[in-house]
Amino acid sequence: MKLTTSFIVGIATLSISSMTFAAGDVAAGKAKSAVCATCHGAEGIAIMPAYPNLAGQNAEYLQAALKSYRDKQRQGGMAAVMQMQATNLSDEDIANLAAYYSSLK
Amino acid sequence: MKLTTSFIVGIATLSISSMTFAAGDVAAGKAKSAVCATCHGAEGIAIMPAYPNLAGQNAEYLQAALKSYRDKQRQGGMAAVMQMQATNLSDEDIANLAAYYSSLK
Repeated sequence: MKLTTSFIVGIATLSISSMTFAAGDVAAGKAKSAVCATCHGAEGIAIMPAYPNLAGQNAEYLQAALKSYRDKQRQGGMAAVMQMQATNLSDEDIANLAAYYSSLK
Repeated sequence: MKLTTSFIVGIATLSISSMTFAAGDVAAGKAKSAVCATCHGAEGIAIMPAYPNLAGQNAEYLQAALKSYRDKQRQGGMAAVMQMQATNLSDEDIANLAAYYSSLK
């Protein structure tokens, strides 16, 4: 029952998030990724286990995560670092970075 | 300069997070993962692009993420769903789930 409720909420939230998803440009994302590579690695494999690997992650999820950091909605863990990094990213930057990391294996 | 500052904050936060990291049990994590699989897939590859893939993700990061959801520190995106799912997870459950998903390819 709990699962069913969660799933319905999930679908409802998904519908909202899908409306704001725009595909990004891989090359532009790569060009913007130098700072990210400091922690997440040149190929999207994190340099330390406290950081997430980004290679092959779903672009739509990555966009939502970056926007949540930028909007200071994501707290806890390493969120303070990511909030700072995401502060000056536009929606387009975020879409491009997400497309780039999603494209890596 | 901004990068340097962020990196120092990152290292400081990492030191704190490392102190609370405990390795989990893969088999126990797998046994607990049935609900997670509804969205994140039976093998940790998400069923929809709004959800993150978990296969091969760093266990330490996964633990921090799950605890941030459980403690309602992570907002935005699909956080409402994850907050609900994580509510009843113990630190041991979280360590086991992180170990399991980290072990997948």
